Amino acid sequence: MKVGLVQHSNCNDPNKNLSYTLNQIDTLAKQGAQLIVLQELHGFLYFCQTESQQYFDLAESLDGNTVSALAACAKKNKIVIVGSIFEKRGNGIFHNTAIVLERNGALAGHYRKMHIPDDPGYYEKYYFTPGDTGFTPIKTSVGTLGILICWDQWFPESARLMALAGADILIFPTAIGWDNRDSREEKQRQLDAWITIQRSHSVANNLPSISVNRTGHENDPSNQTDGINFWGNSFVCDARGKIITSCSHDSNESIIAELDMTESEQQRLVWPYFRDRRIDAYSNITKRSID
Amino acid sequence: MKVGLVQHSNCNDPNKNLSYTLNQIDTLAKQGAQLIVLQELHGFLYFCQTESQQYFDLAESLDGNTVSALAACAKKNKIVIVGSIFEKRGNGIFHNTAIVLERNGALAGHYRKMHIPDDPGYYEKYYFTPGDTGFTPIKTSVGTLGILICWDQWFPESARLMALAGADILIFPTAIGWDNRDSREEKQRQLDAWITIQRSHSVANNLPSISVNRTGHENDPSNQTDGINFWGNSFVCDARGKIITSCSHDSNESIIAELDMTESEQQRLVWPYFRDRRIDAYSNITKRSID
Repeated sequence: MKVGLVQHSNCNDPNKNLSYTLNQIDTLAKQGAQLIVLQELHGFLYFCQTESQQYFDLAESLDGNTVSALAACAKKNKIVIVGSIFEKRGNGIFHNTAIVLERNGALAGHYRKMHIPDDPGYYEKYYFTPGDTGFTPIKTSVGTLGILICWDQWFPESARLMALAGADILIFPTAIGWDNRDSREEKQRQLDAWITIQRSHSVANNLPSISVNRTGHENDPSNQTDGINFWGNSFVCDARGKIITSCSHDSNESIIAELDMTESEQQRLVWPYFRDRRIDAYSNITKRSID
Repeated sequence: MKVGLVQHSNCNDPNKNLSYTLNQIDTLAKQGAQLIVLQELHGFLYFCQTESQQYFDLAESLDGNTVSALAACAKKNKIVIVGSIFEKRGNGIFHNTAIVLERNGALAGHYRKMHIPDDPGYYEKYYFTPGDTGFTPIKTSVGTLGILICWDQWFPESARLMALAGADILIFPTAIGWDNRDSREEKQRQLDAWITIQRSHSVANNLPSISVNRTGHENDPSNQTDGINFWGNSFVCDARGKIITSCSHDSNESIIAELDMTESEQQRLVWPYFRDRRIDAYSNITKRSID
């Protein structure tokens, strides 16, 4: 299967961001991509750098403008698209939501970010109610997609649950970057940890994975920090944890990778973790702490 | 804390293997090691390459020869030792067991390998009953040790449960190697996956980790394969997933690494995964498959 990734910087105009994205999808589709993955909140600057009520105006419903535009684009190109919206579910209930558009333009499903971060520069708990979709993969014509969003990627439980529920591939739309006040060594360490944890989900679950991150520097509207230097490095990993292809840290790149979707079944025979899980001894995973 | 690792090849004489190990412990203790970790089943050739009843004669109880020798060595050097035995618990009940000896020579605790592999060349299900200790870390004077053995290392649940139960460090005695009939690329991929999964446990749990693997080539007594080329590469990783030090793939090495045991607490504030785990949504982890 040919998969496409769109890594890009964003500007303050959602329409410009969307039109850039649609153009890139068209280009990748012409190159043969059957599944295209966009980055987290691809329509906006990363507004969670500050807590400000005005940004709730950016939110839209599951039949809003972004979903409609991506649906039309999916239908036109006969491809599956994984997009990301700031979802207004109801008054006072907002989510960070991944949406999947089928080749015929139908909404195949959505996933609401389950783990919501909150630390300086990433004030997501202010904006997003934690998802209640559970770790439920979404069935499509190109396979069952285990979509997880950004902070979710640090929790091995997320990937495992998607795998147990039948995901054929793990997909991570994300928005993570450096604080330029950190040393070069610290930045490298953070990037390494980010790559390592996602590769590990492929290794532990014998599944290919796609991670799409934004790039470019975005200022902190509150001027309390130097902003975020989003580190790009979007990548595709095979079912054995090997990186097949990856993007640079600092430029807009739309790339294609070819995934062997039969490898996962084979790999589960070679390194048969799923045979040997000690499900009789895992129940404490649901505890906050084993005191 | 200064930790010591003993990576070595084994011979057919358990007494020689044990005496080599004790010598290396003495040397590392003189260099200031406070905690010393040995490799999985350090007393023997890796007998699980074949299924043969004779090897059950190698098994010993928790107060057997190996435990006694390591206890005396721990007491003499005033250090904590993590060793590994083929445990005879009772008639027909054998385990692959890690043992922890305190600075005063007392047995601080034991951990019985929970996940038992079985694939060509690693016929462990024949020899070892799956452990019933659970994922319970062992308290010692140098910290609480989350010990996991070899195949356990591929299961994120193991490391998470040890972390939730208060482990200060993850420790992986192991015995894994290459099949020399595999290509150079395939060997590198396997080694990369092995390093990645263990680093990921440090990243996901904000804990340092120590992995000690054997080295050297061991023939297959049944002559059905080319034997196993144990790949060494023992390593120590900090609480942020960065490798601090590592061994070569093909030589006996006894090394020391210095771990900052305060880093874990700090790292859990910087990347606060434990605050955000969705314990309300993890219960299906105890299922074999979410059908």
